[in-house]
Amino acid sequence: MLKGKSLIDPMDFSLEELEQIFNLADRIITNPKKFSHCCDGKILATLFYEPSTRTRFSFEAAMLRLGGKVIGFSEPNSSSLSKGESIADTVRVVSCYADIIAMRHPKEGAPQVASMYSKIPIINAGDGGHQHPTQTLTDLLTIRNIKGKLDNLSIGLCGDLKFGRTVHSLIKAMSRYENNKFTLISPNELKIPDYIKTEILNKNNQIFKEVLNIEDCIKELDILYMTRVQQERFINKQEYLRLKDSFILDKEKMKSAKSNMIIMHPLPRVNEIAYEVDNDARACYFKQAQYGMYVRMALILKLLGIDPDVVENEEINESEEFKLPNNIENHMKCKNTRCITSVEKHIPHIFYLSNSEKKEYRCKYCDQIYDNSEL
Amino acid sequence: MLKGKSLIDPMDFSLEELEQIFNLADRIITNPKKFSHCCDGKILATLFYEPSTRTRFSFEAAMLRLGGKVIGFSEPNSSSLSKGESIADTVRVVSCYADIIAMRHPKEGAPQVASMYSKIPIINAGDGGHQHPTQTLTDLLTIRNIKGKLDNLSIGLCGDLKFGRTVHSLIKAMSRYENNKFTLISPNELKIPDYIKTEILNKNNQIFKEVLNIEDCIKELDILYMTRVQQERFINKQEYLRLKDSFILDKEKMKSAKSNMIIMHPLPRVNEIAYEVDNDARACYFKQAQYGMYVRMALILKLLGIDPDVVENEEINESEEFKLPNNIENHMKCKNTRCITSVEKHIPHIFYLSNSEKKEYRCKYCDQIYDNSEL
Amino acid sequence: MLKGKSLIDPMDFSLEELEQIFNLADRIITNPKKFSHCCDGKILATLFYEPSTRTRFSFEAAMLRLGGKVIGFSEPNSSSLSKGESIADTVRVVSCYADIIAMRHPKEGAPQVASMYSKIPIINAGDGGHQHPTQTLTDLLTIRNIKGKLDNLSIGLCGDLKFGRTVHSLIKAMSRYENNKFTLISPNELKIPDYIKTEILNKNNQIFKEVLNIEDCIKELDILYMTRVQQERFINKQEYLRLKDSFILDKEKMKSAKSNMIIMHPLPRVNEIAYEVDNDARACYFKQAQYGMYVRMALILKLLGIDPDVVENEEINESEEFKLPNNIENHMKCKNTRCITSVEKHIPHIFYLSNSEKKEYRCKYCDQIYDNSEL
Repeated sequence: MLKGKSLIDPMDFSLEELEQIFNLADRIITNPKKFSHCCDGKILATLFYEPSTRTRFSFEAAMLRLGGKVIGFSEPNSSSLSKGESIADTVRVVSCYADIIAMRHPKEGAPQVASMYSKIPIINAGDGGHQHPTQTLTDLLTIRNIKGKLDNLSIGLCGDLKFGRTVHSLIKAMSRYENNKFTLISPNELKIPDYIKTEILNKNNQIFKEVLNIEDCIKELDILYMTRVQQERFINKQEYLRLKDSFILDKEKMKSAKSNMIIMHPLPRVNEIAYEVDNDARACYFKQAQYGMYVRMALILKLLGIDPDVVENEEINESEEFKLPNNIENHMKCKNTRCITSVEKHIPHIFYLSNSEKKEYRCKYCDQIYDNSEL
Repeated sequence: MLKGKSLIDPMDFSLEELEQIFNLADRIITNPKKFSHCCDGKILATLFYEPSTRTRFSFEAAMLRLGGKVIGFSEPNSSSLSKGESIADTVRVVSCYADIIAMRHPKEGAPQVASMYSKIPIINAGDGGHQHPTQTLTDLLTIRNIKGKLDNLSIGLCGDLKFGRTVHSLIKAMSRYENNKFTLISPNELKIPDYIKTEILNKNNQIFKEVLNIEDCIKELDILYMTRVQQERFINKQEYLRLKDSFILDKEKMKSAKSNMIIMHPLPRVNEIAYEVDNDARACYFKQAQYGMYVRMALILKLLGIDPDVVENEEINESEEFKLPNNIENHMKCKNTRCITSVEKHIPHIFYLSNSEKKEYRCKYCDQIYDNSEL
Repeated sequence: MLKGKSLIDPMDFSLEELEQIFNLADRIITNPKKFSHCCDGKILATLFYEPSTRTRFSFEAAMLRLGGKVIGFSEPNSSSLSKGESIADTVRVVSCYADIIAMRHPKEGAPQVASMYSKIPIINAGDGGHQHPTQTLTDLLTIRNIKGKLDNLSIGLCGDLKFGRTVHSLIKAMSRYENNKFTLISPNELKIPDYIKTEILNKNNQIFKEVLNIEDCIKELDILYMTRVQQERFINKQEYLRLKDSFILDKEKMKSAKSNMIIMHPLPRVNEIAYEVDNDARACYFKQAQYGMYVRMALILKLLGIDPDVVENEEINESEEFKLPNNIENHMKCKNTRCITSVEKHIPHIFYLSNSEKKEYRCKYCDQIYDNSEL
């Protein structure tokens, strides 16, 4: 039962809940007219504390195509909210006007704070470099609908694997499905962080390998997920110039790919996919944007508890037991300067148990790791 | 009959007209669905020449929840209108597209000018430090609905009483009802202006007293209306530090308050109400924001002349007689540099008779006082 | 059949197609309620890479009054799209969310590029100083509906005739109708460019004359189209001061005008029409803004192929023959630095045959002229 929930982290939802969302998205794609008045009288507030036009359009179009309406701001300058009012006060006021909120914020954890004070569901539309869960939902729906499944796939991820939150989230999400094979394509400077390998891939018994260019692996892939390589990440400009072409997908490289491989990209691209590839039938990055709108339509309906067919009557069962306390509050402050708690002093400092064997806790807002002895 | 009127000054409406608006707001609160298509096909234009997200959201949500639609801008930068076009031309053009306008402007009197040239109703959504009438309507509806009445109440107003337009307007509005008692809580630097005491409170035979801190009076109050105290208002920083805690409401001070006292605040707050007070059942400042949306819904319906039940047939009776001329035009210019007439030279300089005994006139746009001999 | 077409240049449509749009606009003006749900479920995206509030409001109000909805941005700062993403990628993504796009862009030809990559119709809402076709449609509908015809009229055009794209487009458009007489009123510094005289007016056998002030010609005119004269255009300030009054329309000058002459202006005005003229019944510039909304309503319906009455079944007949190639691609680059091809390198360089006798080609994006030997 997703009604009334917020979506802050892409891992917030169980596989079953994800499946519910994807099934609803399918039903919308098949028969959009049936859903065109589902949200009559409902209002989405888009609170974008930094601009992200593509994401904002996707949310707004999703709500409008469900018959709902939108209020919002698209950058902090056009909003007096940015002048010193706390996130808590803002969402409590916006809760009076709207039925659901999509929030984009430069500080990690801001949407988490919002969800703690809001009477209405919060959707994290990106919090700094931290999380962007609807991008992950978009990626999953795209793969599921074009490849027909989310398991037993060979996935190449190419570009900046060190800092790319989109890639990290997709690896975490795809690792929950069986028997996927990951090929991590990046220069040495931008390799995937170790914790993704040890805590996500190994722990879930997923096969992976790291390679240094696209040519070496493209023929094995079912999916090639491209991301940008930024020159600023390289210490040495010559190194960048020597390497960059290995991470640019062009017509020539596509010759080796399977006939049903799909190319994905979270957009915007700069030059990492040559324009000549756009007309290749395997280029799916614009379809992906389309799926992004449909998955947001399904998400909004689920969080508002609206379904024209199903009467949802599921009960929440809570029977978890913990030895260590589930949360530790106000014993210390989070040390991450990008965390929302560094700017809004009134927020309770909460750390949740993230790994009971290791006695490991994390900040509720930005997921910074602390061990038990520090708290 | 409010149809076609503009709302520029909180005192524009008679007590009877206010009562009509509040009654309609009540009917909306009771049965919002009934009103959800009242404004089908109508468009609100939100012309915000300075950002005020809360106010803008409240107007937009109000119109959308009535089934209407919204066009607008939220800051001057995103609007080419700010580049030299006169208010008169702008509203005449916008009148072609929209059915009603909510205008926020940094210059005093700008909405007054708009109402003189517009074919459609103008709602003043704040003109500099001058007027903000829908905030006053919000405050009145909140008091009326939570306390059940607008008379025989003991009201404390705390904070910056010298410059706070919200407080001035609320005192003027509440002085029209019988037997209210005002407690004015502020540091000496920020005491209420004399004209409020002599011309409003004394003239309406209202009881009031001035005190220097919250503790001294909180136990007597039915309503405590909090506002911000800005450090910049103090000549002397040490004086500010010595005094500021007296004007911060916390749990401790709330212990002395009546069990049914209500706390109000126009928002945003900075630190004048401690976060620990938010969970107190007497904290009504977020409910107040909710009432703000409902009263704007009622106002929009009244000014557009839409009521699903009542067919309004009232006639306007004009039988007033004046000895002094009602208006004096173009004999002199208003001397207030914040007045809209200081920047838009084509506007007629109009002064209206504000007190016939004293032969006192005021500028039509900013309400600056002049005596008859000056005009 | 206009369904699915884009409107980039005011001359894109045949006289017959224009007539279809104007007839539909008339039907909307007569019975707006009939059209108030025509665009239910449709979304207009307003992509304004530079602010133009009047134009944006007009498009948005048009779509909303047809029952449609709007997403968009009103200036580049509030849009992350401005950060390096190509027009092609942007419109392909926006095509996933919206049904029709109105685009304003500071670079000439940007909407032309958009129309080449978009799955949905593009309306040029102004591209630099190049084209603004919906202003021309607005002007034509205004003249047609107030004067009852588009031919046999005496039209005065006053102000900056050298740089004013509005005036150039209107002359081109009106030259397609029979027996109009043009009076070109401007200081010597701002006279109409020669190509308008030779290629448009002479070629279409239109009568025209050039004069240096309004007084000399106003009595003969059926229409006086006013535009702004900017001081910056003059080399010499004293020359500007000496001349400017000749190009300001006031009550005095209006005394000589016909009783049914109409005054038009694309707005915003600065001071070229005195405020005292506004109450003259012949002042039509605010009505013109109103017609602007109606003509955009008709245009949106036509491009979306929606008509509540007519089932459109026209076939496109293409039987044109060319000796010279219709298009020349990538033989050279356009030399105009304001052209979109100067900033987006991936765009194909296309030149179209604009005059087969002269063997003259023009850039597809900015219409810069080249002769055959250059290509």
